[in-house]
Formats: sequence, C-alpha cells, structure tokens
Amino acid sequence: MTTGLNETHDPNLKSWVESANDPASDFPIQNLPLCAANVDRWSSGSQLYARIGDKLLNLDHLDGASTALRGVKDILDREVEGLGPSHLNWLHGLVPLRRVLISLLRQDSNSVEDREDFEKHFLADVSEAKFSNPFEIGNYTDFYASIHHASTVGAMFRPDNALLPNYKHVPIGYHGRASSIVVSGTDIRRPRGQQSPPDDNPAAGPSFGPCKLLDYELEIGAFIGPGNTLGEPISIASARDHIFGLCLLNDWSARDIQKWEYQPLGPFLAKNFASTISPYIVTLEALEPFRTAGYHRGPGDPTPLPYLNDEHDRAAGGFDIPLEVLLQSAEMLKRGLSPIRLSRGSFKDMFWSFAQMIAHHTSNGCNLQPGDLLGSGTVSGPTPESRGCLLELTWDGMGADGKPKPRRPIELPSGEKRVFLADGDTVIFKAFCEREGFRRIGFGECRGTILPA
Amino acid sequence: MTTGLNETHDPNLKSWVESANDPASDFPIQNLPLCAANVDRWSSGSQLYARIGDKLLNLDHLDGASTALRGVKDILDREVEGLGPSHLNWLHGLVPLRRVLISLLRQDSNSVEDREDFEKHFLADVSEAKFSNPFEIGNYTDFYASIHHASTVGAMFRPDNALLPNYKHVPIGYHGRASSIVVSGTDIRRPRGQQSPPDDNPAAGPSFGPCKLLDYELEIGAFIGPGNTLGEPISIASARDHIFGLCLLNDWSARDIQKWEYQPLGPFLAKNFASTISPYIVTLEALEPFRTAGYHRGPGDPTPLPYLNDEHDRAAGGFDIPLEVLLQSAEMLKRGLSPIRLSRGSFKDMFWSFAQMIAHHTSNGCNLQPGDLLGSGTVSGPTPESRGCLLELTWDGMGADGKPKPRRPIELPSGEKRVFLADGDTVIFKAFCEREGFRRIGFGECRGTILPA
Repeated sequence: MTTGLNETHDPNLKSWVESANDPASDFPIQNLPLCAANVDRWSSGSQLYARIGDKLLNLDHLDGASTALRGVKDILDREVEGLGPSHLNWLHGLVPLRRVLISLLRQDSNSVEDREDFEKHFLADVSEAKFSNPFEIGNYTDFYASIHHASTVGAMFRPDNALLPNYKHVPIGYHGRASSIVVSGTDIRRPRGQQSPPDDNPAAGPSFGPCKLLDYELEIGAFIGPGNTLGEPISIASARDHIFGLCLLNDWSARDIQKWEYQPLGPFLAKNFASTISPYIVTLEALEPFRTAGYHRGPGDPTPLPYLNDEHDRAAGGFDIPLEVLLQSAEMLKRGLSPIRLSRGSFKDMFWSFAQMIAHHTSNGCNLQPGDLLGSGTVSGPTPESRGCLLELTWDGMGADGKPKPRRPIELPSGEKRVFLADGDTVIFKAFCEREGFRRIGFGECRGTILPA
Repeated sequence: MTTGLNETHDPNLKSWVESANDPASDFPIQNLPLCAANVDRWSSGSQLYARIGDKLLNLDHLDGASTALRGVKDILDREVEGLGPSHLNWLHGLVPLRRVLISLLRQDSNSVEDREDFEKHFLADVSEAKFSNPFEIGNYTDFYASIHHASTVGAMFRPDNALLPNYKHVPIGYHGRASSIVVSGTDIRRPRGQQSPPDDNPAAGPSFGPCKLLDYELEIGAFIGPGNTLGEPISIASARDHIFGLCLLNDWSARDIQKWEYQPLGPFLAKNFASTISPYIVTLEALEPFRTAGYHRGPGDPTPLPYLNDEHDRAAGGFDIPLEVLLQSAEMLKRGLSPIRLSRGSFKDMFWSFAQMIAHHTSNGCNLQPGDLLGSGTVSGPTPESRGCLLELTWDGMGADGKPKPRRPIELPSGEKRVFLADGDTVIFKAFCEREGFRRIGFGECRGTILPA
C-alpha cells in the first residue's frame, strides 16, 4: 500500500551530479535528505544542507542565486526558517522543497545556467563537511517497540514471564536525555557509575567505577514536524503527518549501571551519557516506496485500542528499512581489518508503528514540538542474527541449573573476543532501503568510537 | 553552618518599597527572586523582573535610566543576557546583581532621584503581571529524594520490601518532560489514558478514558546555573555552585495510568501531561540563612560513596523550607469557603541533597545546561501530616486480609470528600522560610485548577 508514490520516486530520474546516479549510492536524487553541517570555506557555524550523491547542497547560501534557487530560498524562508525548533509546519514545506530541489538537480534541468559555477558556489564535497545535530532537540523519548527485543530481554530477567502484561496494549516509552545527543562520528567516553554489590557479598555494598558492560542499541529515530499544543492529542490518523523524517540512532547503554539503578523509575544514568544520531534526516516522502504493514499481530493478540488503531497505519505504517551493525576494534583498525557485521535486521519487524507511538505519546495531551526526537527502541527481529544489541546477541539462554549460561563471545577477525564493548571499539550502523523498480534510499551511517573512562 | 551570611541578610535592612517591609511578606528586600512576566503597558512578550513586596521591578527596561540602574543593566547584559538557555555563568552574575538591586531598593538609597517617577517607569503592581516560565527549560529530571515518600509508596506495592536495596546508595531519578512544564495559574486538563484491566476480569483488557486517580506531588525544583560539558562530571564539592535557585513544583500524577504503564521503563504518560512551577526563582543567596544538614542518615545507614559525600554538603546542603498544600474545590469557591490545608512538611527532611543529585546526575558525564530543571521528588516527612501527595495522605495501610484497606477520604468544609482530585479542584502549594533573627523568605505560590478531561 504505497499510495503516496509520484514522479519523484521514478527510478529513471537522474541527476547532473554524477555520483548520485551510482546505483550503490545511498543518496540518489530521489532521496535528498537534509542535514546540518559546517563547511569551513563558507561559514564558521552550522548551515542547512541537502545531500545528493557525494555532495552537499548549501541551502543557506541562496541569496542572489538564479531564479530556481530563489524558489528554494522562498520555501525555506517561509517554511523552515533555519534549523532549530520553531512552530512552523515542516511537512507542508517539505513536499514543495523536494520538488524544487529535484527540478534543480535533475539531469535535464535547465534551471542552472553554469553548472561548474554553481558547483563552486553551492556544492561541497561531503569530505569537507563537519556535521552537527540537525535540530536543537527539545525533548527525546525512547520507545520499546520491538516485541522481539522486549521478549528476549524479558526472558533474561523473568524467565517465566518474559513479556509483561501491558506490552501488547501500551507502546511502552520513557523520557530520555536530549542534551547528550551527539552526531555520528563523535567519540563516546565510557561512563562511570554505580554498580550493584557482588551477588556473593551484598554487604560489601555497591561500587563506583567505569562501566563494564557497555552496549549499543540499534534504533530508528523519528524527528517531529509540526507537533501539537498542550492538551490537544494527535489522532492516529493524522500522526504520520507529524513525522519530519527518520534517522539512525544508537542509544548507548551501560548494562551494569542500568541493572542497579532502574528500579523503580526506569533507566537513567545507564542511558543519558550519550546517544548518537546519523546526520541525515531522510524524509517520509523519500521512504514512501518502502512502506509496509504497521502492525504485526498474531491470531491471539489483542486488537489495539481505538486510539491506536487506524486502517492506513495498520496496512502501511511500517517501513522496510534493512539495517545492520558493524564493529571494528582498535586492533582491527591497526591491522587494516575491515569492520565486521554483527547483526542484520529490518525495521519492518517492529510491533508498534511510529504513528502509534505519536498517538500514544499525545493521548494524555502531552505536547510534541518541532525537532523532538522519538527513538523506536532496539530494532531486533525474530532471528538470532537480527538482534540489535550485545545484551541480546551474546546471550546464550538459561542453563539446566536455572541460572544464565555464560555469555557466548563474538570472535573478531583480529582474534579478539567481545561480550560487551571494549575501549577503542568503533560501532557503525548502516541502513538503506531497496525494492525492485525503485532507487536505493539510504541513511548513511551512525558511528561512534569508545574512549576509555 | 551558614557561612555564607553577609550584610544582605541583615533583618534590619528595609526598602523604600513599603510593602516589602511587611513582616508577613514573602518578598522582602532580602529575597528579590527573579521571574519572567508580561506587563501589557510595557511589552507584548515576556520580560525579566525581580519581585520586591507587592511590586515587580522591570529588569529589561533599564536603558537610559539613572547610573544605578545602568549598573543593573551592565550586569544583566554581561551575565544574564535575557532569559532562555545560554552558556553563561549565572551565579557569577547573581551575587553582584543582588547587591546592585539592594543598593537601589534599600530605604536609605540615594541611587534613585525621583522615586515616584521611578515607580511609574520601572515598578509594576504584581496584579498587572502575566507570568511565564522563567527559562526555556531544556531538560527536566525528577528525583525521588524523600525516603519517607519512597518508604510509604513502596509499602503499598511491596509490603515486605518497601524500600528497594538501591535507595540508600543511589539518588534515584528519571527524565521528565520539559515541554509540558507550565507556570502557576495555568489550568490543568485531566488526562485521558490507558488503565489496567479490572482485577476480577483481566480478560476484559485495558480501557482508555479520563484518569480516575489524579494526584498532585509537592516538590521543590532547582534550576541549573552554569552546568557542565558532556563528559565532565560536576563534583559534589562544586555542585552547589551550579544551582541558580529554587522554586515550587507540582508534578501532577495520574496514578491509574502510572500503575498500568510503568513496568519496565518507569512513569511516562502518568506524569508528562503537565507539571506546574511557581513563577519565582528564589536564589540560594537569599536562602543562605535557612541551610540545614544535607544528609539524614541513621546509625545503620550506609555512608554515601565518595562521589556523593562532601563535608559542607553533609552539614549544610539541605534547606529548612516549610511547605504546605492547600485545596479548594469548585463548591468551596462557590460558597466562599477558603482553601483548606491538606498537609505541611519541610524540605529539610529529604534523604538526598540537591548537590548529591547534581553530582550523581553528571557522574557518568551527562551534561546539565543552564535552565534545566531538577525536581526533588515528593517532599514527605516522617509524620502522616507531612505527606506530600494524596496517594500517601489517603492511604490507610493494609488490612488483616493482606489487602489494602479502603482509602480514608479527606473531608472538605463543603461536606465533600476527596480520595483523589476532582474536576474543579484547585491545588495550591505555599512555602516560606522563617528563622529568628532573619526576615521571612518566601516562594509565593504554585497553583493549578483541574479542568474536566
């Protein structure tokens, strides 16, 4: 059910920016994700860009340009007004923006008189850019929308009662920390924190020191577009119009800190030391060909309550976004060994859709604002290969004695082993959508390297 | 241990603003809390004010004023730079600001040549003001720092294990929602939400509708001053320098929504529909005479881990702030009956200090930013009269059958009864500090009226 398809999704549409026409590029003319970056020769601060092929088109430099570019500027001035939170209707602006950018960049465009001159003034090589967060993120909410993740993790702590009774009724979420969200490429300092007393000597009390069980969580993030006024819920039917676009999100997690602190009010310091996002906001318009069923419910599963149930969302509220996790240790880097893949799954396997998360989040009147970030929760699929965090990946189940078996380490090509992350490890998330008859739409990557505590 | 006392705390200091000299005023010249308000005849938007007696001194209107006022403006320009988050060192600016304001407003001041003219141009009556949040609050964190609250609530859910093993080691906290924080006087819409299936018919599944167990939570809020860079913890010894000032905070809670949603990731929609703050930020400088012990630990209690343990904080990291909760129903209002007091306690009874909360919050490197708000958690004391929420106040313990006894309703002077809040109820928090040899330092009030769902 991809009713939103139009000529901007035509796979034969090519760009005069040659690198965008490479079938292996994440960024064909059909994608055009937005990002914030600094290119030294143009500014000392962050500016707004659209990515095309290997290039970044400067959308903040449009004064005095050709008529076509002034069209872009008019839309931006009217609808986007720089970056950072505002109360404009982002989506309203995005569809025209996409069309103007395509008309400018398409191979047969005659909007640009002198392409060489245009490139010099408006197109930067991506290698020149220093990225930053695309929004000032006001509030960050993290969900728990993969039933596979919730079931596997639940089984570790509650073998007889893995999935809690509320799970299939409530899109479980909690508030995360917005201030510590950083852009891909930022190093991540291993956190220190309190860890529980040793099991065999509780009287010793807790200790404080570097996290020993550092993990990543593979997630998809959704940036909020218009948002709502306090007290006015967003209906499930209109929820999708409140998503500005998607990105990759690594919700770094300190499992030992989490285990000790999380009762009774949930995760706190185990999560808020850092979360990493990929620099690009891939618009829902670009992802339209990859829509898939929003709800995955078996015969015995409850029907969602009416405020979480919508025909379009049920049929097409999901996205088939294959994603993978790669790891490269410091030793591998030193020896020239490429990152290895730890897992591969798809966002289509989520139990709850983003529209359901938005409808739920605002059902009590809570206000979402432009630039707010929603995390999907760890994206894990039904198979062991599709588990989106080390907590799940190296889990080896319960032994005959009713206690967890020792974790099964992952062997790296360097001969090293990993149960959780070591200092110097680089974690890389990648994702791109592919479908016969359409161009690949990619997210780029979301990466971070662990520094010692 | 009130080593920070100086001549600005002298009780004999009086102001030429007469209402500030009333011993019953919350706002003598020794207080001077800051707030954001709009006074129609001066602006269409929010401006910065200091409160003195019944008046508000406009701190945004200081251009072209007398030399003394230009002193204020210089400090504000240098240190405060309007409202909203910034990376300035707030406290560095506050101490000089307090001194300049006192020199301007003291009875024997000769900084103001024509007081009548000054009043006309710079002093508004508080009745003219429409208040707003004093900061754009970036992130809001709520703690759980009253051991009395944690014990009483714990006993309801875990009679044999009321206080969790981590409580005396970890200042438990979680992230709240910043976007739905509103200023005193804003009406509160009763939230809707999912509630658990009936105990006697779990197969019926959850329902969605107006919250039936709506509650307030009496808290003190702390606004962050300078804050820290991501990855650089704030030590317990320097934590107090990161508090800009305190306010009253009502963390409205939907107990039925909370009960169903909070496992395993903590409270979410039960809290984020609204939180109310009092308009004034009372500075720590003004509260200096009311410092009290920061830690209240019995002989068997563990010593805090070193990162949470500091000599000054142990001796003087608390504040003796008596606070009370009042309620007035719509019926009482109609019949001219005054609000009645539901409880009275003091902030001095908290188990954890704000300095400990800040040291803990940043111990993993998490960055606090100017304008961030920390909530203390419900302020409940050791006695039944000092319980800071209805969940505790109307609790009547467990019956002989091991089940909770029916809640004990509160009788209102109108003949109505309350177990939780009804539509039309107005909840009012008040707080002021008193100590022999010092002027009263008050917080004003924090109020909200419940509108139907």
